[in-house]
Amino acid sequence: MDVGFIGLGHMGQAMARTLLKAGHRVTVYNRTHSKEAALAADGANIAARPSDVCHGDALITMLSDDAAVEDMVLGSGHILAALDPNTVHISMSTISVALSERLAEAHEKADKVYVAAPVLGRPEAAASGQLFILAAGPSPAIAFCQPLLEAMGQKTFVLDERQPVANLAKLAGNFLIASMLESLGETMALVRKSGMDPHRFVDIITNSLFAAPAYKTYGTIIADEKYDPPGFTMSLALKDMRLVLAAADATAVPMPVASVLRDHLLAGVAQGEGHTDWSRLAQLSARRAGLTPH
Amino acid sequence: MDVGFIGLGHMGQAMARTLLKAGHRVTVYNRTHSKEAALAADGANIAARPSDVCHGDALITMLSDDAAVEDMVLGSGHILAALDPNTVHISMSTISVALSERLAEAHEKADKVYVAAPVLGRPEAAASGQLFILAAGPSPAIAFCQPLLEAMGQKTFVLDERQPVANLAKLAGNFLIASMLESLGETMALVRKSGMDPHRFVDIITNSLFAAPAYKTYGTIIADEKYDPPGFTMSLALKDMRLVLAAADATAVPMPVASVLRDHLLAGVAQGEGHTDWSRLAQLSARRAGLTPH
Amino acid sequence: MDVGFIGLGHMGQAMARTLLKAGHRVTVYNRTHSKEAALAADGANIAARPSDVCHGDALITMLSDDAAVEDMVLGSGHILAALDPNTVHISMSTISVALSERLAEAHEKADKVYVAAPVLGRPEAAASGQLFILAAGPSPAIAFCQPLLEAMGQKTFVLDERQPVANLAKLAGNFLIASMLESLGETMALVRKSGMDPHRFVDIITNSLFAAPAYKTYGTIIADEKYDPPGFTMSLALKDMRLVLAAADATAVPMPVASVLRDHLLAGVAQGEGHTDWSRLAQLSARRAGLTPH
Amino acid sequence: MDVGFIGLGHMGQAMARTLLKAGHRVTVYNRTHSKEAALAADGANIAARPSDVCHGDALITMLSDDAAVEDMVLGSGHILAALDPNTVHISMSTISVALSERLAEAHEKADKVYVAAPVLGRPEAAASGQLFILAAGPSPAIAFCQPLLEAMGQKTFVLDERQPVANLAKLAGNFLIASMLESLGETMALVRKSGMDPHRFVDIITNSLFAAPAYKTYGTIIADEKYDPPGFTMSLALKDMRLVLAAADATAVPMPVASVLRDHLLAGVAQGEGHTDWSRLAQLSARRAGLTPH
Repeated sequence: MDVGFIGLGHMGQAMARTLLKAGHRVTVYNRTHSKEAALAADGANIAARPSDVCHGDALITMLSDDAAVEDMVLGSGHILAALDPNTVHISMSTISVALSERLAEAHEKADKVYVAAPVLGRPEAAASGQLFILAAGPSPAIAFCQPLLEAMGQKTFVLDERQPVANLAKLAGNFLIASMLESLGETMALVRKSGMDPHRFVDIITNSLFAAPAYKTYGTIIADEKYDPPGFTMSLALKDMRLVLAAADATAVPMPVASVLRDHLLAGVAQGEGHTDWSRLAQLSARRAGLTPH
Repeated sequence: MDVGFIGLGHMGQAMARTLLKAGHRVTVYNRTHSKEAALAADGANIAARPSDVCHGDALITMLSDDAAVEDMVLGSGHILAALDPNTVHISMSTISVALSERLAEAHEKADKVYVAAPVLGRPEAAASGQLFILAAGPSPAIAFCQPLLEAMGQKTFVLDERQPVANLAKLAGNFLIASMLESLGETMALVRKSGMDPHRFVDIITNSLFAAPAYKTYGTIIADEKYDPPGFTMSLALKDMRLVLAAADATAVPMPVASVLRDHLLAGVAQGEGHTDWSRLAQLSARRAGLTPH
Repeated sequence: MDVGFIGLGHMGQAMARTLLKAGHRVTVYNRTHSKEAALAADGANIAARPSDVCHGDALITMLSDDAAVEDMVLGSGHILAALDPNTVHISMSTISVALSERLAEAHEKADKVYVAAPVLGRPEAAASGQLFILAAGPSPAIAFCQPLLEAMGQKTFVLDERQPVANLAKLAGNFLIASMLESLGETMALVRKSGMDPHRFVDIITNSLFAAPAYKTYGTIIADEKYDPPGFTMSLALKDMRLVLAAADATAVPMPVASVLRDHLLAGVAQGEGHTDWSRLAQLSARRAGLTPH
Repeated sequence: MDVGFIGLGHMGQAMARTLLKAGHRVTVYNRTHSKEAALAADGANIAARPSDVCHGDALITMLSDDAAVEDMVLGSGHILAALDPNTVHISMSTISVALSERLAEAHEKADKVYVAAPVLGRPEAAASGQLFILAAGPSPAIAFCQPLLEAMGQKTFVLDERQPVANLAKLAGNFLIASMLESLGETMALVRKSGMDPHRFVDIITNSLFAAPAYKTYGTIIADEKYDPPGFTMSLALKDMRLVLAAADATAVPMPVASVLRDHLLAGVAQGEGHTDWSRLAQLSARRAGLTPH
């Protein structure tokens, strides 16, 4: 298929590359043009302006936050205006439920096609096309884009006709991971200070009740205290917890653990560690307990 | 093997029965004698006094809390005194790290053999011999008792020579489950108030990052709002969170999520729901969010 | 002095009336015109449009939230454009630090005079001219408006040339009161369930370490369980905790107690009690503890 | 009056001295005898054994914690047995509600007279006889001891015939102070990072809503960042929060702010600051926010 791709951060680059590998024709645009060269070497076309990528089968946007998406789609990027009515806009960024609602309204009013398809997975998963994709929007549009989603993900979950539902599910998923990191972190501090081997503990739980990828990946990172390189930073996690709490506030749902997470991530950022991996929540637990890193 | 078994609560009954099924000779004792009859029908012998079950290959104790274990072993039950030096005492109750330390000292001083082997799993798992067993103590004693542990569990993790390590691991495991329940509960309240189908959400997470038994079992319970019959009560969970916080206090480890759990479980108990399943933590989240049960 | 007054909620009405009593000429404007009649009976002039009150010695705005202030000053109310360069705009609303920063920039750019002067105190204090006023902005402008501030408050604290400092101080003050309410509420639930007389307890603390107006007023309300009529609602308190947390987020300051307050107030709102007094935080504590109101 | 005094810590020494100044005959006992010399210089008699101070008008015990009190009164100190039936035992230590209940029962069973009279106030207040005393027990006994209480305190609050009520009130009072410290600490971190003068902020709140001794004393300490010398340590505050939470647990009262305090104090202790003043809760807030001490 013919696809435009805007946003070449860690995740975006990897995702665009899997599209190329799967044989799709990809035209990329990135605000900072330096990032486009690597993709061009892999066969991507480079666009000079956002409006140049709005006329294929689909346009994928994968940007860092609400402000970037809003500016690109509704503001200075003029995507909404430039979008061909036959081009499906697949918004894969992690954004607020409220912005997704505004995007849904704006696309509908302009007779443009909007699919929300945020993803679960770290950059490694993006590079190998092993993401989980949470899709919502008009069924025919999702069906039409399926070859693209299949190239990027190991599995696509179709959720709802209403696009914001996918964004909520993504945020809820990130909250569950973050709360797992916090609980693991608190536990591992206790385990270490009690003189028990943290690797043995991870071994036990991931071979009994918590035999899940998330526990295995992060349990090992925390037991090893090998948090680098960052796959998803504390700053981004803080941004997502803000979005979770905003969605919870809008629907009047108290989420005490989300508040704890927000406070801890904010402490991490305040202490200069915003650029490190969010699994360092465990290191913050260790530090509060007076433990020093190995 | 020849084994004594003290404590016929939900878990204990089921465990004793799996021993009988596996062909072991089991003599049971329970303070309330009414519970012994059902086991006798399955082939168990009944003992009149605790001291009568202290002379086989092993003695298993599976009691409700620290007070019960302390009284049985060191107090009015006189187990420690009555125990044959060749009979391995396998303590499978969920008890505090501090009591396990005292038991270790007392057994050593009296030249008796003490193995700590608390379990992870609900009564259904106990009934089908599918528990996970966390064992710590003298290696030869654990090896000797292996046929018994194999009858009761699907897997035995041998942790350490020091018995209290197993008790800590068990408490840490329960903390991880409880914090998962809390996080799921907060998330599902958000999901429901946002108009997303909670079953669909559980479906997604348990088929992506959290493909683990604990998430599947409890995610379904919470989405269905079918919390009965209780497998593990809020009161018992509160007891365990107290023990987690006590171990954390003794080693100076702040555990904010454990504190949140303690407060919520205490609220459940205060509101008359201590006898219900701990997965009702999710119902407490729903209620705080103004949702009413279906 | 000649003063315009926009915003006739509970607080605004009472404040405008103290200005009239002190002999100032007051012209009022309120979006809902029904509220103006009572003030007219006390001698106020009524303006048809916001722009009609922008030409005296000062213009006071006392609106409910950021959205209302932003719309009135920078949006559909056109206050900034209509404001006479010699008319001091005194913004007494409780607004975010971020909006106050935007207002400061906008006024400066337009060569208009902006003083931030939010207040501490309940409607009764407003009615009797006993508010505490936290003022920040250009010193000459504050000095010029002193007769107005004196009419409304028992004391004016001049804080800084930078207006947002006053808004921050106001929010911080409200946080301190809210956290006192939460702590008192938790304590009083404990006191009641322990069989101690709550009035006696309030009597003791307010005659020893906490001999302060806030503890006396609210301690009595909570001991009496007489929360009505509301002086400041849970919904408004929730709004303010959001603003506190937003200011804390912007400066990277974790505030765990503010998070607890936000969660509890959100629960109050979710349970249909947003319109009741924020001292009902104590009732939420009592309810969590299984107590029923007298 | 003729009074025995056991326990010469910071508080006890100061209290015994005010009794001497008021003309009472005081006989002191302390486990570590080195502390008795200073009191002897001021006119106190020194006792060799605890039982030697059990025969005057009253015996005051002022010990560090539950374990010390239990051992002194019911254990190796043999106070209960040695106490003359006409000697009133005034227990001024901060102890658990549960221990006070056991002491009440034990004294009653032995026909001995027990008054609980814990105090509010720092060592400076103890030195100048300016403590607040919370007394509970048999009315005639409290009346009889009034001259002693008057020498040590500026005010005696008589609460109840049931002694544990006084211990609960004392713990509740300490919780209120600790939660004030936490709220002030969080606020001051926000104030400092927002560029507002912390002294000015303390000045405002203590001259408006919070014109109370506790806010003045601690607000100034926190604004000055002059936490030394410690008047009441983090370790002791942690002990008291444990007792508050234990009383709350026993009566099923969730106290989320008490949990936050426990976690923060535990972090302070874990990080090696248990011996410093509990007002350093504010420094922990500052540190979490990335601020460094001046």
